[in-house]
Amino acid sequence: MRKVGIIGLGLIGGSLALELGEQGWQVLGVSRQAKTCQIALEKGIVHQSSTNLSLLQTAEIIFICTPLAAIIPTLEDLIPYLNNPQTIITDVGSVKAPIVNQCSQLWHYFVGGHPMAGTAEQGIEAAQKNLFVGTSYVITPTEKTPLEAVEKLAKIALSLGSNVHYCTPEIHDRAVAWISHLPVFISAGLIDACLGEKDPQVITLAKKLASSGFRDTSRVGGGNPELGVMMAKYNRESLLRSLYDYRQHLDYFIELIESQQWESLDKKLQQMQQERPTFLG
Amino acid sequence: MRKVGIIGLGLIGGSLALELGEQGWQVLGVSRQAKTCQIALEKGIVHQSSTNLSLLQTAEIIFICTPLAAIIPTLEDLIPYLNNPQTIITDVGSVKAPIVNQCSQLWHYFVGGHPMAGTAEQGIEAAQKNLFVGTSYVITPTEKTPLEAVEKLAKIALSLGSNVHYCTPEIHDRAVAWISHLPVFISAGLIDACLGEKDPQVITLAKKLASSGFRDTSRVGGGNPELGVMMAKYNRESLLRSLYDYRQHLDYFIELIESQQWESLDKKLQQMQQERPTFLG
Repeated sequence: MRKVGIIGLGLIGGSLALELGEQGWQVLGVSRQAKTCQIALEKGIVHQSSTNLSLLQTAEIIFICTPLAAIIPTLEDLIPYLNNPQTIITDVGSVKAPIVNQCSQLWHYFVGGHPMAGTAEQGIEAAQKNLFVGTSYVITPTEKTPLEAVEKLAKIALSLGSNVHYCTPEIHDRAVAWISHLPVFISAGLIDACLGEKDPQVITLAKKLASSGFRDTSRVGGGNPELGVMMAKYNRESLLRSLYDYRQHLDYFIELIESQQWESLDKKLQQMQQERPTFLG
Repeated sequence: MRKVGIIGLGLIGGSLALELGEQGWQVLGVSRQAKTCQIALEKGIVHQSSTNLSLLQTAEIIFICTPLAAIIPTLEDLIPYLNNPQTIITDVGSVKAPIVNQCSQLWHYFVGGHPMAGTAEQGIEAAQKNLFVGTSYVITPTEKTPLEAVEKLAKIALSLGSNVHYCTPEIHDRAVAWISHLPVFISAGLIDACLGEKDPQVITLAKKLASSGFRDTSRVGGGNPELGVMMAKYNRESLLRSLYDYRQHLDYFIELIESQQWESLDKKLQQMQQERPTFLG
């Protein structure tokens, strides 16, 4: 029976475990917390479970599903337990270059991955089937990544119902800076700016009148703070580049309004209306 | 039978007509287009219909439901037909100060209103019952507005199922600049900045990977261009003030990321997460 190891039994790790177990893999789950191991076993999410990485010794492929900051230290801790140098190791982190560059040096059969799935819920209790169906799974090999590792991961991603994309870690990080990380800070800035309103009558009324436009535009800015900090910390360079560019584009809108160039503003907004659907496939 | 006049038979005017007709009002509808008048009659949305404002001579209350730019000229055209100086006239424009200041001078019994209801659809065909249920209806009297006019409009707004708020036209415009107009330009800036990406590999991947975060944050920026221009044109001062403030708050986020102040960034994002729900009652 083919064995898969999963380290970190949260929403992503737990959901992966559920899917792969159903596909006939022997699922070995590792969590730092004994309680999580117990829940995973009780719920039938994993076949075996431990707080000790030695459990994964004989796995064919291992998914590191920890938060970003723990991926590299986890790989360092894991390596001494592995007998087979062709064990494939992958991660699910939302930033790739800093992870992949270091992990590839530590382990030749490392291949970076980023399943872009999620819900508002977190933790093993939120694990669910079909979480990955129709979502994007980005695989980010380097020039040195063994093709076999890439192919095995792609096959698993496809089996989850994901759409698989391949690119370098750097291209990945620049693309997600635009469509995933930049929106968080644009959106947080909106909430922060509104809260800065000094007139109590204005802010009280604004809070009463806020409806779908404010709700949607502020959603990701009011999301998980830990995740926002991780994006900024690990994808700092690409995010800053996007933020600087964004500021220039915002300034152009401000300039059009200052100088009352209504025709140009209309053209620009028409272009936005036409182009937005090209992002929403 | 009490008569209500409605000028402009689009989504808002048509939906108002439907509701008031059901409540027992005699509904007189005016549209610039004969075809719209015909549809409104055929669908039973109005009792009488004309392209001529003289139809409204005997109405007790008249709603001007035209686009913002047409409100003042419409009132000027309407006044010569009215015999009773206590006919109440109101509008449904999304910006209040420039409208109310001028209209109040033209007609003593004018009272500004802003029903904050809508759908993605527009026009008479989109008119529907219950459009106003649970939405905000802002009434913006000045010091000189007759109390009777305010009270009659409030009674109608309540009868639609709306939550009624009262404030000056200026406070209204500053509040909606924050929660309705600013989000449009923040959001348009996001789409525009992404489209500015020069690397074809990055932009192609970004478009493929964009999902709910991008979709929500870009929604209002990719909306009706005409509406965006009207907001900017009529609420220019408040919008610019909000945009300048926003830029400062965004710069503070950029500064925290540049200087790697992760603890401060975390605190700030925690604050955004806590405060956002205070806008979503």
